[in-house]
Amino acid sequence: MLATMIHAARDVRAEERPDPVLLTPHDAVLRVVAACVCGSDLWPYRGVTPTKEPHPIGHELIGVVEEVGAEVTSAEPGDVVVVPFSLSCGRCQSCRAGYPSACDRVTGFGSTDREGHPVDGAQSERVRIPLAQHSLFPVGRPLADLEAAGLVPHLLTLSDVMSTGHHAAVSAGVGPGDTVAVVGDGAVGLCGVIAARRLGAERVVAFSRHPDRAALARELGATDVVAERGEEGVAALRELLGGDLADAALECVGTEESMAQALGSVRGGGRVGFVGVPHGGSQVPIGQLFRRNITVGGGMAPARAHMAELLPDVLSGAIRPGKVFDAEMPLADVAQAYAAMDERRATKVLLRP
Amino acid sequence: MLATMIHAARDVRAEERPDPVLLTPHDAVLRVVAACVCGSDLWPYRGVTPTKEPHPIGHELIGVVEEVGAEVTSAEPGDVVVVPFSLSCGRCQSCRAGYPSACDRVTGFGSTDREGHPVDGAQSERVRIPLAQHSLFPVGRPLADLEAAGLVPHLLTLSDVMSTGHHAAVSAGVGPGDTVAVVGDGAVGLCGVIAARRLGAERVVAFSRHPDRAALARELGATDVVAERGEEGVAALRELLGGDLADAALECVGTEESMAQALGSVRGGGRVGFVGVPHGGSQVPIGQLFRRNITVGGGMAPARAHMAELLPDVLSGAIRPGKVFDAEMPLADVAQAYAAMDERRATKVLLRP
Repeated sequence: MLATMIHAARDVRAEERPDPVLLTPHDAVLRVVAACVCGSDLWPYRGVTPTKEPHPIGHELIGVVEEVGAEVTSAEPGDVVVVPFSLSCGRCQSCRAGYPSACDRVTGFGSTDREGHPVDGAQSERVRIPLAQHSLFPVGRPLADLEAAGLVPHLLTLSDVMSTGHHAAVSAGVGPGDTVAVVGDGAVGLCGVIAARRLGAERVVAFSRHPDRAALARELGATDVVAERGEEGVAALRELLGGDLADAALECVGTEESMAQALGSVRGGGRVGFVGVPHGGSQVPIGQLFRRNITVGGGMAPARAHMAELLPDVLSGAIRPGKVFDAEMPLADVAQAYAAMDERRATKVLLRP
Repeated sequence: MLATMIHAARDVRAEERPDPVLLTPHDAVLRVVAACVCGSDLWPYRGVTPTKEPHPIGHELIGVVEEVGAEVTSAEPGDVVVVPFSLSCGRCQSCRAGYPSACDRVTGFGSTDREGHPVDGAQSERVRIPLAQHSLFPVGRPLADLEAAGLVPHLLTLSDVMSTGHHAAVSAGVGPGDTVAVVGDGAVGLCGVIAARRLGAERVVAFSRHPDRAALARELGATDVVAERGEEGVAALRELLGGDLADAALECVGTEESMAQALGSVRGGGRVGFVGVPHGGSQVPIGQLFRRNITVGGGMAPARAHMAELLPDVLSGAIRPGKVFDAEMPLADVAQAYAAMDERRATKVLLRP
């Protein structure tokens, strides 16, 4: 089968690999219908995260079940399933509490599972899914219907970006009437805009200096866009809000600057939901939290736990998070997909095997 | 009048000072019925916070209004009031949102108010209260009745410790059925135990290695006590909970070690409410928050905002937070009160002018 391997910085290849097979009774094998490239995939691509040896890459997918192990009863061959970007057992305390991304046995795509078997990447024609019983999320409709309705890209976002944007908003306690600032105009930030509106925010201010993304943010529900960043961004926000600040902010980048901007954007007692993977010195200045009574919550999104809430709104078209895909390419052209995102010619690229 | 001044490390004196008078139409002058010494007062006492020049000290009091300025209508002479440890305007965005401790005009005892006038300390016979309209919290009962019912010490805790313990629990999202770990067995931690139980926690585990405080923690509602600290404390907690961790933790100390213990005590998706004033390198390791989806909230307690919820339970005797006072001294002996707390001969000392 064709599968994406990263060999080194800026060296991503779609290449022939052995077809996956069931290795344990807890596995499933899927045929991938659509996958995509994540902003976090750009880190190894850019060399920010070193690639010590070649490995499969990609962690977002919607697929069709081809085969399940003897212990897997949650889905059967032919089912269309979305798979969250982190695989989980469903039984440990964190899973039971609704945080499968903090699962005791959490397993990532392109890594090694708890039995020591290599795990495929999602940017592939096929994948073996360990911990399949809890990790597969059946959509409940035939693929032909979903394709005909154009729902595949929207459903694919439940795998990561839409669930992550929702997690930022939930972690920031967004509720009816809130004013919410969104830091980051990438695919996650844009999904954060959708999520904040969906949870009842009255005013959603997107920080963006890219005209295309700002326009999309408005289309997805942002009521205002602020182009300034950092302290100037906070000052512009305060002016926009008549001297006030936001009730909540979504930190969808992961740098020290973006966290500072999110913390500076909220009033005393405000809440920051953070989902930007921390890097480059990202930190939480505890003195500021203390003086201003700011709550910081979030982290790696428990995508599997959020899917049940989000699925009906995707199926009904109430939310259309697939709009974050501004390019679609065949899996064979995966190297071009990475390059397009790296060079910011695309926000997020959907891949079709 | 007699008032407490700190001159330098370990040099606290009750000395004669001019009686306070109204300086603005927004002031009130109170006669102090009871004040007390806070754990945070020990920092300048111990020289951890340097004392550059002598200043009044103390920030917790219950008193009787003697005089109010022309703009103060929230209380009148003769009213018994509790005063929160931070004074606030009641009108800015943070105040309106219920976070007066993050008020734009927040003013502390023993400092300087926004008009440039010195502010008295609460460990005094009398005090001028700036921003009195919003800062005074009338108890609604005559002093003689409160004294006869022995309620004065319990009411006094609303000024700081009980409101702060409650804030830790609220910030940690404590609710019915939760298992809560409390880090810190000082007066705030003990009030955190009360607060967690009051909010419905089923199991409250107090970390304490002092037999007296452990016993008091149990009396106030702790279901379990763990003597170990740090990683050993977390391991002991996990053993106690059959392999699980707490849903929430209250960080009531303010050191790097106590924050690490609180973060380590909660399950994936757990919540840490922190009210320990950060010092000595206290920090929030964002990578741990991200991986484990831990929410951190809290800070300087909005005591004024919590009083209305807590007052009925104090008046009814449903909670008895005044139990944290294990010594009472005349104001004239304030130096002995500091020494007793510094040497851990007392948890918290109540002062009677």
